[in-house]
Amino acid sequence: MSPVPRYPRSVPFSLFTREPRAQRLAAGPANFLRDIQLPLDNAHSSLPSLYSLSRPFSQSKMGSLPVGRLHKGNINQNILAARYAVRGELAVKAEEYRVKLEQGKEPLPFDKVIFANIGNPQQLDQKPITFFRQVLSLMEHPPLLEKEEALKSVFGYKQDAIDRAKLLLKDVQSVGAYSQSHGSPLVRRSVAKFLEKRDGFPADPAHIYLSAGASSGVNTLLNILCAGQDNGVLVPIPQYPLYTATLAVLNARCVPYYLDEASNWSTDVKAIHMSVAQAKAQGTDVRAIVVINPGNPTGACLGPDAVKQVIDLAVDENLVIIADEVYQTNIFKGEFTSFKKRLRQLQQEAPGKYDHVELASLHSVSKGMVGECGHRGGYFELVGFHADVEEQIYKFISVMLCPPVIGQCLVELMVNPPQPGEPSYETYQQEYNAIASGLHQRALALYEAFKRMEGVECQEPQGAMYLFPTITLPQKAIEAAQAQNRHADEFYALRLLDATGVCIVPGSGFGQKPGTYHFRTTFLAPGTDWVNRIVEFHRKFMDEFK
Amino acid sequence: MSPVPRYPRSVPFSLFTREPRAQRLAAGPANFLRDIQLPLDNAHSSLPSLYSLSRPFSQSKMGSLPVGRLHKGNINQNILAARYAVRGELAVKAEEYRVKLEQGKEPLPFDKVIFANIGNPQQLDQKPITFFRQVLSLMEHPPLLEKEEALKSVFGYKQDAIDRAKLLLKDVQSVGAYSQSHGSPLVRRSVAKFLEKRDGFPADPAHIYLSAGASSGVNTLLNILCAGQDNGVLVPIPQYPLYTATLAVLNARCVPYYLDEASNWSTDVKAIHMSVAQAKAQGTDVRAIVVINPGNPTGACLGPDAVKQVIDLAVDENLVIIADEVYQTNIFKGEFTSFKKRLRQLQQEAPGKYDHVELASLHSVSKGMVGECGHRGGYFELVGFHADVEEQIYKFISVMLCPPVIGQCLVELMVNPPQPGEPSYETYQQEYNAIASGLHQRALALYEAFKRMEGVECQEPQGAMYLFPTITLPQKAIEAAQAQNRHADEFYALRLLDATGVCIVPGSGFGQKPGTYHFRTTFLAPGTDWVNRIVEFHRKFMDEFK
Repeated sequence: MSPVPRYPRSVPFSLFTREPRAQRLAAGPANFLRDIQLPLDNAHSSLPSLYSLSRPFSQSKMGSLPVGRLHKGNINQNILAARYAVRGELAVKAEEYRVKLEQGKEPLPFDKVIFANIGNPQQLDQKPITFFRQVLSLMEHPPLLEKEEALKSVFGYKQDAIDRAKLLLKDVQSVGAYSQSHGSPLVRRSVAKFLEKRDGFPADPAHIYLSAGASSGVNTLLNILCAGQDNGVLVPIPQYPLYTATLAVLNARCVPYYLDEASNWSTDVKAIHMSVAQAKAQGTDVRAIVVINPGNPTGACLGPDAVKQVIDLAVDENLVIIADEVYQTNIFKGEFTSFKKRLRQLQQEAPGKYDHVELASLHSVSKGMVGECGHRGGYFELVGFHADVEEQIYKFISVMLCPPVIGQCLVELMVNPPQPGEPSYETYQQEYNAIASGLHQRALALYEAFKRMEGVECQEPQGAMYLFPTITLPQKAIEAAQAQNRHADEFYALRLLDATGVCIVPGSGFGQKPGTYHFRTTFLAPGTDWVNRIVEFHRKFMDEFK
Repeated sequence: MSPVPRYPRSVPFSLFTREPRAQRLAAGPANFLRDIQLPLDNAHSSLPSLYSLSRPFSQSKMGSLPVGRLHKGNINQNILAARYAVRGELAVKAEEYRVKLEQGKEPLPFDKVIFANIGNPQQLDQKPITFFRQVLSLMEHPPLLEKEEALKSVFGYKQDAIDRAKLLLKDVQSVGAYSQSHGSPLVRRSVAKFLEKRDGFPADPAHIYLSAGASSGVNTLLNILCAGQDNGVLVPIPQYPLYTATLAVLNARCVPYYLDEASNWSTDVKAIHMSVAQAKAQGTDVRAIVVINPGNPTGACLGPDAVKQVIDLAVDENLVIIADEVYQTNIFKGEFTSFKKRLRQLQQEAPGKYDHVELASLHSVSKGMVGECGHRGGYFELVGFHADVEEQIYKFISVMLCPPVIGQCLVELMVNPPQPGEPSYETYQQEYNAIASGLHQRALALYEAFKRMEGVECQEPQGAMYLFPTITLPQKAIEAAQAQNRHADEFYALRLLDATGVCIVPGSGFGQKPGTYHFRTTFLAPGTDWVNRIVEFHRKFMDEFK
């Protein structure tokens, strides 16, 4: 019937799991990279995969029947090699627990799942900012604008919300229409004005590209940058796994550089130079450096000197800078220094030296006090890119047509919020400040709890939405984890989830120095009960494996 | 300063334009594929690029300075090789004209630009469906739900719109929160119910993946499928260029099969077998077949026999079927036959034979009577895929976190609209029918106009949003086009745009048999003035080049 021999289901999977390329990718190009702890693929282990149990795949494939055209051994092996722990096994198991609690059939040792694995503020407690959502509701249903008085008197809309919706509607026509590939002209102009005000230097809407969240922007940039197997991109370790996952899909090399935990997870330029040298020695064409500022998962904020050091490094090593600045308003200590501003300053101070720096900086509506992840809004600005390259970027994003238009409108609202004296200003400011101080309080409460925990050390919260403590695990726990073919921090996180319903991400999901263990937790969840649950679990865990 | 020699701007571009791999990709694996007319890259020609003129790239790169790290010669050459005519040079020029008219500075020979190049209904005349947008406005600003009476009495919301918003909000919590990677459980359940009702066979929410429009779904599927340079996917010619562009980016092979214009652009299975044989002979591992039904750009609808033939072919040739069914409700003649339904019927009729068929079928909120392109909502259903493969698909989409949540809600509304007896039903039905009959009337008016035009032949409208007439161009016009390094139909389309402001896409943007010329136009624009403009232009053009 079929001219191509089908692959029989009964052949053991181990035949497929020897993936030299996949392993090479996970390990990276240089020997020292093999040491970075990245998540193990438990689907390959002898354990039943919790992951696949959670998703009832078709019965017809589950027996001893031969399988169809596609199987693990012949699909895109780059995807197989990619790892993305933020939504991996732990997150899937947490969702299973949530469903079980909802159904109420099976008793669990907790009454609520706390998703501390992902920066998703509105899944937890955070309310959207009223002005933003009022405008969006009018964008979705413009006939509301025909009765302005009722909107105001009955529903509390202010005139500036109404005016903004009219302005945006004039530009996009309908949020149901495709916009230009790089986004609505009005929104891009507003982003440029925002950048000019933030940095004190001109910004050009022609170089601003709206995107479906910052993730989509990163995907675009890495797609353009990575032209082959020997191309590499410097990625901080620990890092947000979007970068390593996307590089794996592109079959490009992740060139890791360790952040310095001892100095508050700051960027160590000497270490980066060494990483570049080692990668080059192995034939890697290192093309770009990713900097996440404020850091994810570390929360570290780079000051003007640190930013200058990275720019100098980019000049010396001829690197494109990808500045992931999505947490630019999530800062508790110090203030945000944008790469764009610092670059423009340096270009003024040392004419000529910095002329050819290529910088892509990203921002998003998902984080900050906006917290509108589900709307998938974001942008990146390109500085110093060649026109030909921008042309190819434009073409690349055109194939997906345009970012969600309502998300584009939200970008406009984020960068151009109500100003003092405008009708919605006071409420906006109150809501904004309440979110900011709530986040800070929760961060501090969690930090205090970690300080009380045996074997846990944590840097003082600086920014972003996360804490990333070190955890010293007993040898017995490490051995128990090894027996399950797991990293010890992953073992810890699974036990925590099973016992308390609190879902965190083990440090191995972001990368960490060998022999060290960490975990990342958001501080978005309200209340202190879940923090106490962690403290209690930790005490019992340490007792058990002492 | 920089250890890597920088590439001087003064080196002629021609050094970069010899792209053997890019040319191979554009040409496809088999000799006969070289004959397919795909768009030329005018950026490489000696003409000034209209495209780049339209986008004022940074001055600093425009002089004789050396360029930075990235240039056309070292970025991802797969992207360079990709072509996407729907938003190419013509669309960019049309946007320039639109801006010029808006600014009113420069007189043009027309007073309005008609974007007939892209199926973007709400950019033109189509109003969104009230029920959908009422629900979405409530999703965006849930405090509106606190005053139901005013919503109803002042703003005309019906109880079912209010109830639906509450139901969806309960599921997604907030449209500002990330959903599960493959979308909200409620929305996926509704899609499954819709499919069961449409096809008369069970559907499982676990195999339904919401996406940011169908384009994003296609991108996911091709990413999974294409594992290397020798992998190929059968794509109809003419086709929607998303497919060829994505395959080019993935460095996979497009294995084209010609649709049969003489029989209303139907699928010719013998021709497909031949394409597969030729591709195999050249070492291509042909993995899947793309079918666009109803067709884009052709509008052709496949009946049950034609669908069965494709499924049989998939069995014989061991191919995954990608059924792009986004125009499933845009049908004027006959009725839609879904691949899923036909497959399930065949599985019942001939037990065993069709058990291992793998089918991915896609749908979207962008087309049909919904027309909500800007919301980027869609889904795909997988049938018969191996659990391991679905696991990798889930991981792949997780890296981008989730599709826009408000777009997911719109998917729910599309598949679960108001039913007879429900308060919003009557208005919904009226609006839906008015859009459907308006589209049909416009299609017929355009068809009649084409019949009157010398050298133009057009199939009777069957479905989708497009007509795709053949045009016989005078030899002198073909020569004039060659002198500009353009395809003749592209030359024609540019002249049409310059003279009338009507933007269409030349057939070379979709692929066509050598020596034939076509163009695709939507029939979305209201009125007949723009149609008359085309008729008049055509007469003058034919006179000029006679």
